[in-house]
Amino acid sequence: MNPAAPHRSTDGTSSPAAPGDALVVGVDYGTLSGRAVVVRVSDGQVLGSAVHAYPHAVMERALTAGPAAAAGSPVALPPDWALQVPADYVEVLKVAVPEALRQAQAEHGVRADQVVGIGTDFTACTMVPTTGDGTPLAELPDLADRPHAYVKLWKHHAAQPHADRINALAHERGEPWIARYGGLISSEWEFAKGLQLLEEDPEVYGRTRHWVEAADWIVWQLCGDYVRNACTAGYKGILQDGVYPSRDFLAALDPGFAGFVDDKLAHPIGPLGGLAGTLTAEAAAWTGLPEGIAVAVGNVDAHVTAPAAGAVEPGQMVAIMGTSTCHVMNGDVLREVPGMCGVVDGGIVDGLWGYEAGQSGVGDIFGWFVEHGVPGSYHAEAAARGISTHELLTELAAAQAVGQHGLVALDWHSGNRSVLVDHELSGLVLGQTLATRAEDVYRALLEATAFGTRVIVEAFRDAGVPVTELIVAGGLLKNQLLMQIYADVTRLPLSTIATDQGPALGSAIHAAVAAGAYPDVRSAAAVMGKVNRAVHTPDEDRARAYDRLFAEYSLLHDHFGRGGNDVMRRLRAMRREALAPAAGSAATPAGAPDLVGTESR
Amino acid sequence: MNPAAPHRSTDGTSSPAAPGDALVVGVDYGTLSGRAVVVRVSDGQVLGSAVHAYPHAVMERALTAGPAAAAGSPVALPPDWALQVPADYVEVLKVAVPEALRQAQAEHGVRADQVVGIGTDFTACTMVPTTGDGTPLAELPDLADRPHAYVKLWKHHAAQPHADRINALAHERGEPWIARYGGLISSEWEFAKGLQLLEEDPEVYGRTRHWVEAADWIVWQLCGDYVRNACTAGYKGILQDGVYPSRDFLAALDPGFAGFVDDKLAHPIGPLGGLAGTLTAEAAAWTGLPEGIAVAVGNVDAHVTAPAAGAVEPGQMVAIMGTSTCHVMNGDVLREVPGMCGVVDGGIVDGLWGYEAGQSGVGDIFGWFVEHGVPGSYHAEAAARGISTHELLTELAAAQAVGQHGLVALDWHSGNRSVLVDHELSGLVLGQTLATRAEDVYRALLEATAFGTRVIVEAFRDAGVPVTELIVAGGLLKNQLLMQIYADVTRLPLSTIATDQGPALGSAIHAAVAAGAYPDVRSAAAVMGKVNRAVHTPDEDRARAYDRLFAEYSLLHDHFGRGGNDVMRRLRAMRREALAPAAGSAATPAGAPDLVGTESR
Repeated sequence: MNPAAPHRSTDGTSSPAAPGDALVVGVDYGTLSGRAVVVRVSDGQVLGSAVHAYPHAVMERALTAGPAAAAGSPVALPPDWALQVPADYVEVLKVAVPEALRQAQAEHGVRADQVVGIGTDFTACTMVPTTGDGTPLAELPDLADRPHAYVKLWKHHAAQPHADRINALAHERGEPWIARYGGLISSEWEFAKGLQLLEEDPEVYGRTRHWVEAADWIVWQLCGDYVRNACTAGYKGILQDGVYPSRDFLAALDPGFAGFVDDKLAHPIGPLGGLAGTLTAEAAAWTGLPEGIAVAVGNVDAHVTAPAAGAVEPGQMVAIMGTSTCHVMNGDVLREVPGMCGVVDGGIVDGLWGYEAGQSGVGDIFGWFVEHGVPGSYHAEAAARGISTHELLTELAAAQAVGQHGLVALDWHSGNRSVLVDHELSGLVLGQTLATRAEDVYRALLEATAFGTRVIVEAFRDAGVPVTELIVAGGLLKNQLLMQIYADVTRLPLSTIATDQGPALGSAIHAAVAAGAYPDVRSAAAVMGKVNRAVHTPDEDRARAYDRLFAEYSLLHDHFGRGGNDVMRRLRAMRREALAPAAGSAATPAGAPDLVGTESR
Repeated sequence: MNPAAPHRSTDGTSSPAAPGDALVVGVDYGTLSGRAVVVRVSDGQVLGSAVHAYPHAVMERALTAGPAAAAGSPVALPPDWALQVPADYVEVLKVAVPEALRQAQAEHGVRADQVVGIGTDFTACTMVPTTGDGTPLAELPDLADRPHAYVKLWKHHAAQPHADRINALAHERGEPWIARYGGLISSEWEFAKGLQLLEEDPEVYGRTRHWVEAADWIVWQLCGDYVRNACTAGYKGILQDGVYPSRDFLAALDPGFAGFVDDKLAHPIGPLGGLAGTLTAEAAAWTGLPEGIAVAVGNVDAHVTAPAAGAVEPGQMVAIMGTSTCHVMNGDVLREVPGMCGVVDGGIVDGLWGYEAGQSGVGDIFGWFVEHGVPGSYHAEAAARGISTHELLTELAAAQAVGQHGLVALDWHSGNRSVLVDHELSGLVLGQTLATRAEDVYRALLEATAFGTRVIVEAFRDAGVPVTELIVAGGLLKNQLLMQIYADVTRLPLSTIATDQGPALGSAIHAAVAAGAYPDVRSAAAVMGKVNRAVHTPDEDRARAYDRLFAEYSLLHDHFGRGGNDVMRRLRAMRREALAPAAGSAATPAGAPDLVGTESR
C-alpha cells in the first residue's frame, strides 16, 4: 500500500495520513471488553481500532478463575457480587493494541514508531487489591480461590450495608465531605468495597498493600509506576481539598479500618492529562509500541468522553446516554449541587471543578418496556418492515403532538441517582385510559428521562453552575425523536459527539497531552475532539407545551421523591417481606394453589 | 317425552318438572340482545331459555333504519350518539319467548298454558319518545329519518353539556335532590337526554307526548297500559319523595323546558313486583303465552339481579361485575352516601331504600391491559396450553404473595363513578422496576378494582348503611383469584349468584309476585333466588397485608381524586387541546415529520 496516497479514515471522512504524522493510542476498558484506537495527533482522526473481550467477562455466580475452577469446582459467589480477572486487562494490551496498529498500517500506511503516547480509561469504581509491587492478590497461588482477592467491578453491589453505615456515620458526625457527593456515598465506591473486604475476609484485607483503582493499575502495568489519578481519587476515593476521611471516622466505622487510608489508599496524585511515566520494555513487547513513549495518567470512561466531545469549557454538559446516563461538566467555581454524584477539583479537566451527575435508568427503561409491555403485533410489524420495535414505536410516537398521549411518567424504574439519590424509588405511569397504546407509554417514558435531565440541569443552574449546552454521547444519540425531545424539554442547544469511539478517543487525547503534543487537555480537545454542534435546537412552541408537562413531572417528582408520599419505599419493603425466605404471615397464604386458574363453566 | 319422568334442568341440577307446575317468563333486555327464560314458580328452576339479537343492534355512526337507510343513504350520526329501534325489542317477544317455551316443553314437558305471568327488565336509562298511545315517534313515517325520533340507548353520551348545565344549576340553586345522587346527575339520564332533544330538535320534542323509559315501553306493549316503574323514575328520572325537579328549575335551564315534567314525564308510578296489567291478545299472539296473564311492572337489569341473587335484605350488596361494576343494595334507612349513584325509595325492592353505586371500569381495564400491555409470548403460551391469556396471567398472578409485585394501581382508566364521580380521572400504575412483569401489573389491576369496591363499601358503612355481605353476579365471578382478592380486600364473605340467567331470573321472580304466587319480592326471592353463600371468605393474614396496600391506594385515591393534585384533569385537557382540529400552537409542531424514525448508522 502506498503511504503517500489518500486513505479513507475509519471515521468515514477522506483525509490523508502522512508517514511522519505523530500518533497516539487510546485504550477504553469497558465492562466486558477493551477497545484500542490509533489516533492522529494533529486532528484526532481515528486511523485504526480493535476490540478484545475479557476471557472471564464478569464473574457473578461463581469464580471461574483459579485452581478450584480449573479442577471443575468453581467457588460460588453470593448475590450482588461482580468480579473480574486482572490478567484479562493485560490481554487487551496484547491483542487489541497490536490489532488496531495493524489496521492503521493497512488502511493508512502508518507505523507503530509514529506513536508518541498511550492513554487509558476504565470503568470506575473498579478496585484491585495488590501487593507492594502491584501484583494482584488474585495472582498469588494461595489466594487464587479467594473471591475477595479478585477485582471488584464497579457493579459489585454487595457492599450496600457498608455504604449505609458510612453514610449514616458521615451525617451523624457532620463530615464536611459528604456534601461534595450530594449527601450520599455509593456502595460501588472505594470505602464501601474496602470495608466489605476488611470485615468479610480480614486476611486478604491484611495482605492488601494497595487498594488500587483498575484505572491506575493498568497504567502501573504500562509504565511500572503507581500514580493515583485525580478523577477516581476524588469521585470514588473521597479525596477533597487534599484530605481523605479522617482516621477517627474510619475507626468509628470499624476499629480495624482506622488505617485504611494511611496504609492502603493514600498515594501521590497525578493530574488528568499528566505524564504517569514511560512505556516499559515489557509493555512495549505486549503492545508493539515503542519503549519509552509517554503513558498518561489514568482516567474514567465517562469523564474522558468530555474532551472527546470537545466539552472542556464551563457550562458544557456531556450526557453519556446508554442504559443509564452519566452527566459530566466542568465549572470554574466550586458549588455544592444538591443531589449530584460529586464535584472534584480537576476531576474532568485539570484546573477546573469537575461535576458529575447521573440518571440510573434511561435506555434500560426503554428496553424493559419494549420487552415486557409491548404487544406482539408491534414486534411483528417491525419485523415485517425490517426495523426494530424501538424504531417502530419511535415512528408512531413522533407523529404525536406534545401532550396528545395524556400521560406523564416518572423514570425511576432503576431508582433515582440525581438529584434525589434514592434507589428505593420506582417507576410510575399516570393518565392511562382504555385508549392508551404502547407508543403513548413509550413516548411518555422518553419524555420522563428528558424531564429527569432537566431536573439535573436546573439543580446545577440553581446552585450557580449554569448549563449552556448539552452534548450527547452514547448509543441513544441515534434516536432523533429522543434528541429533539431533550432539546425541547431542556431548552438547550443539543450537540452530539461525532465519533463512535468516544472514550477511546478521549484517552488518546490525554495521551497526546501527556506526550507534550499539546499544552493541556483543553487545547488538545479543541483540535482532536469530535462534535456536531447544535444538531437539535429547541422549538419554542413545543418547549412551551413541555413546560406544562414538566410542571406535572415536577409535582410528582417532589411528591413521591421528597417525602410527600413515601409509598415507593413502603412498596419495596412489602415486596422484600413477601419475597423473604422466612416470609411473614401475610406472604405465604396469598399464593394458595386453590386460587389458580378459573372455572371451566 | 314423558312429563312424569325427572328431567335435567338447564341449571345442571336434577329436578322433576310436573305438568301442573306454575311457570313464569322473564325477559332481560340487554344492550345488543334480549334473553327470555321460562322459570318454575315453586323453586326458581330455569326450564328453558333463548336469546334474540336486535336486528339493528346499536346505531352509533349512522341511522341504519328508516327510508334514507333503505335507499342506501343512511343519515350520519354525530360522535357519542347511540340509538336503537323499538321494533327490535318487540321482535325479542316474538322470537325468544316462543323459543324458550319450546325448549322448556321439549326438555321438561311443560306447556305454555302453565305460565301465569311475565316480567321484564331493561338497560337504563334508555328513552323512547312516543305519541299519546305509545307509538314510538321513529315509527311515524314523517319522522323515520330523524335521529332524535329514535330510542336513545343508555350509552348515548352526547348530552354531557346538558348534564353539566343541570348539575351546575342544581348546585347553584341548592336543589335538595342532588344529594340523593351523590352530587351529580349523569348525561345518560332522562333530563339530560330530554334537554338535548328539546334544544337540538324542537319539533320532535314538541311531538313527544311521553318520554318513556324503554323498561316501561316494553311493558306497555305487553299489557296495553303505561305504568312508570319506581326504579327508573327514581334513579334516572329524579323522582324523590314523590316530587320531580320544579317547573322553576326547568325554566331556568331553558324556558322551553319548563313543562318537561308535567307534559311528558309525570305518570302514575308502579312499585317493583307490582301488576302493570294483563297480557293483551296481541302480545299473547306474539309470545305464545296465554292472554290475560300477569304482566309485572318494568325494572332495570342491574336492580332486578338483586332478588335473583337472593339479596333482598339490608346489608346485602350485589356487585354485577362485567366490563364495569354496578352495586345495588337495600337499606331500611335513608342516608345520603357521598358519591353514590342514587338512593330511591323502593328502587330495588318495594318498601326498602334502594342504593346504587358503581365502578366505571373493571373488566374493560383487564381486557385493555391484555390487548395492549402484554407481550406476545404470553398469548403464545396461553394458546399452546389451550387457555386464555386472562387465565394464564391469573395463574401467574395467583402464585404471588400479597405485595410481592411491589405495585399499586388506580383503576380509573374509564374515570371514577363512585365515590368520586369524576370521569376526568385516569389510570395510574406505581412501583414499576425493571423486574416488573405483565402478571404483576395484571394482579395490581385486579387488586385496584377490589380497592375501588372497598372504598364504596366503606362509604356506605361510614354513612350508616353497613354492608354485611358481598354477592357477586356477572361474568367476572368465574375468576377465582379475583373473587378471593375481593373477599380478602373487603373482609366480607363473598357469595356468588348461582345462575347464568341473573337478570332474566330476576324478571321471572317479579312476574311470580305480580301473578300473586308470592306476597312480595322478598319472599319470592327467598325461594326462587339462586346464590352460593360465602363461597370465598377473607383470609386474615392476606386481609392484613391488603390493609397496608389499601392504605397506599387510599392515599393515592385522595391525592389524585380529591384535589391534592389535579394532574389527571390537566392531562386530559392537554390531550384534548393537542387533538383539537384547530390545535393551539403547541400541538402542531410536535408531530413534525422530520422527527420520524432513527438514523441507520
